[in-house]
Amino acid sequence: MPARLVIGVDIGGTKLAAAVVDEQLRIHQRLQRSMLGQDTPALLDTIAGAVLELIGMAAGEVVAAGVGIPSLIDRRSGTSVMAVNLPLAGVRFGALMSERLDLPVFVDNDGNLAALAEHRAGAGAGAEHMVFIGLGTGISGGLILNGELYRGSVGAGAELGHMVIDCNGPPCQGNCPNHGCFEALASGTALGREAVAAAQRHPDSALGGALRAGRAVEGPLVTELAHDGDAAARAVIELIGTRVGVAIASLVNVFNPELVVVGGGVMGAGEMLLAPARAELQRRALPPSRDLVQVVPAAYAHEAGMVGAAALALDGLAAKQGEA
Amino acid sequence: MPARLVIGVDIGGTKLAAAVVDEQLRIHQRLQRSMLGQDTPALLDTIAGAVLELIGMAAGEVVAAGVGIPSLIDRRSGTSVMAVNLPLAGVRFGALMSERLDLPVFVDNDGNLAALAEHRAGAGAGAEHMVFIGLGTGISGGLILNGELYRGSVGAGAELGHMVIDCNGPPCQGNCPNHGCFEALASGTALGREAVAAAQRHPDSALGGALRAGRAVEGPLVTELAHDGDAAARAVIELIGTRVGVAIASLVNVFNPELVVVGGGVMGAGEMLLAPARAELQRRALPPSRDLVQVVPAAYAHEAGMVGAAALALDGLAAKQGEA
Repeated sequence: MPARLVIGVDIGGTKLAAAVVDEQLRIHQRLQRSMLGQDTPALLDTIAGAVLELIGMAAGEVVAAGVGIPSLIDRRSGTSVMAVNLPLAGVRFGALMSERLDLPVFVDNDGNLAALAEHRAGAGAGAEHMVFIGLGTGISGGLILNGELYRGSVGAGAELGHMVIDCNGPPCQGNCPNHGCFEALASGTALGREAVAAAQRHPDSALGGALRAGRAVEGPLVTELAHDGDAAARAVIELIGTRVGVAIASLVNVFNPELVVVGGGVMGAGEMLLAPARAELQRRALPPSRDLVQVVPAAYAHEAGMVGAAALALDGLAAKQGEA
Repeated sequence: MPARLVIGVDIGGTKLAAAVVDEQLRIHQRLQRSMLGQDTPALLDTIAGAVLELIGMAAGEVVAAGVGIPSLIDRRSGTSVMAVNLPLAGVRFGALMSERLDLPVFVDNDGNLAALAEHRAGAGAGAEHMVFIGLGTGISGGLILNGELYRGSVGAGAELGHMVIDCNGPPCQGNCPNHGCFEALASGTALGREAVAAAQRHPDSALGGALRAGRAVEGPLVTELAHDGDAAARAVIELIGTRVGVAIASLVNVFNPELVVVGGGVMGAGEMLLAPARAELQRRALPPSRDLVQVVPAAYAHEAGMVGAAALALDGLAAKQGEA
């Protein structure tokens, strides 16, 4: 019997990554495509083209596709409500793609899919109650509650990056009208902003030198300098980690989860970021939740979205077959 | 056939209220008992005595009891982990009571039970995704997710009063180690503190006069003066309402609920508090969640705990019978 396969597609701000994935969530063939500057029709062409190309490469029957988009989604109509960097607002993405590809297509947002990937085959395997936080340019979130992905009434839930942690804090980014959000204070963007400020305050630090040399004072460089022992860079990561801990304390009080999984590009800083986050959690959260929860790094780095999209497609297909 | 009845018990900081409740969650006989200054054995005597007295009064078979306690509960063992005002920490409350009363006894915290009451027979009837906030001396919380009470991994979840809304804010109260919690900034206690400060700043206001006259500048008086048109009192309620709106914005982004139900004693202020809360929600939360959610006052005032405890007992019994 040939393998049953699905296509998992992860749409980022400027490029897509997609793969053929099997029922054990193992990745087979993969590809990437740039979507830079594309308008809506071009974008849909690129995505459909990538899926068709992978179907051609697959060593088995492709039975569905899952797509993660960086957007709030209204699941009642399958419409992308608000996409930060892509011309997808108002597009009935799932229905359009399904028609074009003549394949069941399931859509969800990137945070939910990363949570699904970690829960099915990553750091959260087996957890009944798991909070996922993705620290990237923005902050995405996903919730596994009672063993299932929690989506809210129309699928727009788990926007954990937009919890307020400082009601007097700075404005958030993108289309978020809020200020003092977790994302405004602890995303990769916030890390870069704090690093530039620290570089200016400490011109003699390695961070200060990097700024003067015109280097991009952003997450990867700050992490590199912190690893090399620069105190200014370390302090920035500790500040961001402490803020992550504030948000985790709130989430632990609200969800009493077994596990908080922290992923996203900023997690390149690893324990330098997680240790102060855990310390802040201990200072702030209530027993018994704070004593029971584990805060761990994500197992997947760049492939969480693809794997989660594949898991979504397999789940969606199973649910459809259950109905039929 | 005689009616099947349960006893619902609501344990507050200084007194208990209990009632005979039927399967339609209608309240029949009720009683109150003071628990002021009682140690653990006296407390357990008072509670058991109240239940037995109600059983004697009931016009039908009492099949179970439900008890709400103002405590975090570890459902693995039925132990009260931390009770703010009562000597119940570490007590295996459910097992003890069940043995003494020779009756199935089910226990949960007050916030969860108020949410259950509102969901079954109050403002949230029929909602699939509902957030309950109880604004009292402290702030309690309860979550109905996918139609069910959400409790977290050991039953300590939904501590919505201990989400951080101002990471640089004042210390919280009771046993909470946190600072800048929702409860620290928007509970009845916080309202009283802000009202005293406002009375001092505005000695010519009615609020200022009340403070000089030695009256208790607390929620009920502030609400009364605000109703009478005192600008200082109104501004205090608006400030608290705005902070409630900050927390609701976070909760709406996290849960995408159909409904947020706001109860507790502070809701005596009604729309004077809810209107600024809704306005702040609109300023801060993301579409589509912010546009779909309704923010409404609770249907139950003082009886939510009793009714929720009765609903818990009926649910618990049904689950037990389902297992058998």
